[in-house]
Amino acid sequence: MTSITLPDLVTQAVQNVIGHGPIKLHEPTFDGNEAQYVQDCIESTYVSSVGKYVDQFEIELAKYTGAKYAVSLVNGTSALHLALKLAGVKAGDEVLLQAFNFIASANAITYCGATPHFVDIESENLGIDPYKLQNYLSEISKKTGELTENVVTGRCIKALVVMHTFGHPSKMDELTEVAKKFNLILIEDAAESIGSYYDKKHTGTMGLLGTMSFNGNKTITTGGGGAVLTNNLGLAKHAKHLSTTAKISHKWAFIHDEIGYNYRMPNINAALGCAQLEQLPNKLEKKKKLFDKYKIELSKIKGVSIIEEPKNCKSNYWLQALTLDTPSLSMRDNILENLNAAGYMSRPGWDLLNSLDPFIESPSMSLETSNLLFQSLINIPSSPNLVT
Amino acid sequence: MTSITLPDLVTQAVQNVIGHGPIKLHEPTFDGNEAQYVQDCIESTYVSSVGKYVDQFEIELAKYTGAKYAVSLVNGTSALHLALKLAGVKAGDEVLLQAFNFIASANAITYCGATPHFVDIESENLGIDPYKLQNYLSEISKKTGELTENVVTGRCIKALVVMHTFGHPSKMDELTEVAKKFNLILIEDAAESIGSYYDKKHTGTMGLLGTMSFNGNKTITTGGGGAVLTNNLGLAKHAKHLSTTAKISHKWAFIHDEIGYNYRMPNINAALGCAQLEQLPNKLEKKKKLFDKYKIELSKIKGVSIIEEPKNCKSNYWLQALTLDTPSLSMRDNILENLNAAGYMSRPGWDLLNSLDPFIESPSMSLETSNLLFQSLINIPSSPNLVT
Repeated sequence: MTSITLPDLVTQAVQNVIGHGPIKLHEPTFDGNEAQYVQDCIESTYVSSVGKYVDQFEIELAKYTGAKYAVSLVNGTSALHLALKLAGVKAGDEVLLQAFNFIASANAITYCGATPHFVDIESENLGIDPYKLQNYLSEISKKTGELTENVVTGRCIKALVVMHTFGHPSKMDELTEVAKKFNLILIEDAAESIGSYYDKKHTGTMGLLGTMSFNGNKTITTGGGGAVLTNNLGLAKHAKHLSTTAKISHKWAFIHDEIGYNYRMPNINAALGCAQLEQLPNKLEKKKKLFDKYKIELSKIKGVSIIEEPKNCKSNYWLQALTLDTPSLSMRDNILENLNAAGYMSRPGWDLLNSLDPFIESPSMSLETSNLLFQSLINIPSSPNLVT
Repeated sequence: MTSITLPDLVTQAVQNVIGHGPIKLHEPTFDGNEAQYVQDCIESTYVSSVGKYVDQFEIELAKYTGAKYAVSLVNGTSALHLALKLAGVKAGDEVLLQAFNFIASANAITYCGATPHFVDIESENLGIDPYKLQNYLSEISKKTGELTENVVTGRCIKALVVMHTFGHPSKMDELTEVAKKFNLILIEDAAESIGSYYDKKHTGTMGLLGTMSFNGNKTITTGGGGAVLTNNLGLAKHAKHLSTTAKISHKWAFIHDEIGYNYRMPNINAALGCAQLEQLPNKLEKKKKLFDKYKIELSKIKGVSIIEEPKNCKSNYWLQALTLDTPSLSMRDNILENLNAAGYMSRPGWDLLNSLDPFIESPSMSLETSNLLFQSLINIPSSPNLVT
């Protein structure tokens, strides 16, 4: 009797849940008013930087998340850039973020002339480990007045970007405490976590600023799009101002009072977003159902586990993720090969950002858990339309 | 008998051409396949950063302009930023551009850590005056090896951004010669000039790189959008790479080999662009007709002139512009008040960039002509749908 290999078992489990491939990792679905709202834009001629859908999308997004203000932007990267700028991140500063991460946040830090400084995560929720962070900062930093200085580099550590990986909320209470202790401005990268809650608070609403993404691979999409969330009126107004070339309102003159950006979300993209927001509860329900099914099938297999929403949290289950109980790059890649060959588009976790050429010289704490997850994590197809 | 004032005469002339207001300065029209292509995106679920319309738009745009390559981007500002980066503009450099300008190009220069350096224009075509530029550079610069140094600031003058104001081509032959003489990389800002030709060559195709905008107020729109044009395959590939987070192609790994951007045009916006490109010849014909009508009416009024396409050039007449023969801010504002009160959305030329807070300390040559145009120019309603 030949034994079935782990890769075969995983592929079979995935097939048991979602049927035969080819199936994408995550694709958008348009079951609602998308076509109608977009058509309305075209008929009204308001497809560009102003229009009722931009206003409506911002109002509905604020209402949904519970943030006081939402400013819609051209994508999640622009949201991160503006949030960092609004947080006061300046050339020469350092900003803490997890190394197990999409590159956008590290790039956005460099747009401010600052340096990313990488920290480790914990394995349950794939978010920054607050205890390791606190110990690390106690060792490598000192307070100088209101500022926290990295004693190794001599630079100011200005902010902490907390990400909610694949939709699973990070430990916000503990991370908020660390940020407070070390005078770090807390920004939440909620690009992946619309519909995710930490202790009943929506992700992206607990830091000074939060950022979102509505790229095509996200739970809801505007084609390309993003947003900044904040409870601070001044910051919201400033985000809008910076996103619209910092132009002062005037009946006709072109006066811009600072360096600005062209980061507005066009109305036609916001129209898509308004329709997608209406469909969000339905999508979230399906994504949870998909998780439940994967959990049943994967729990039958020895050697793999599925990432679940953390205690006291609600996850949007943006990307379903399984991990090998024994991290192994070769086994990870065997499973990836097997899944992809069977038509189930699957991917590993991100290459750790500190291993990439542009950030190879950036400061970093030791990244044991991040490294183990890089060797053990696999994202499997997660579109809401995979369940009925 | 009371004499009719100049503002009344101008408003009457505008009314004779375009009928009763309210009429916007420039609004998009969607007379073709816009709704169909966008609907197709939604049905296919390809609304985001990849899709057939992105590819088609780039191919059609290259074909239309005669550029070898076109890379579609999220807006004209991102196009300027990438073009400057690809031209090798680095922190500490200076870049020459006209002060009578929209702020995007000066902002994009600062995104590279460089400093805008403002130069004067000529009154016929509102483009950089090549003779003044040559004299000025002879005075304030010296060649050091392959580089041109500003002897006043000590910085390297790296590039020259030539803009085709309101669609009227600048003197490319002469400006190319000056750029060559002083080792400046020439970038063409063709944001306003799709459909405009200098000596039968499309604007944006004569420099090392050209940039375009498809904002809602432009001759054709993608909601928000832009493009880089170039005849250099390496630069085109690099533009695409930088616009897509500098991610290396791989079956699943996330490897990025340099600091990149999220500057891709989404497929849903490109769908709009494909349909708009089909309508471009028709729009250009109407815009020329509108100019002809304005010219007839305005030529009856003493004291004002209309800007015409330069010799040897074809202008797209993006924004129709009249000038006062005797520059006067108060008369300009009286005419603007009168026109806008009658419902004809009109605007002055841009506040000179060197007068704005963020650039008040940037180097600048003396700007006589720019100043005169700031005091004398008025843009009047220019949508192609104002004529049949």
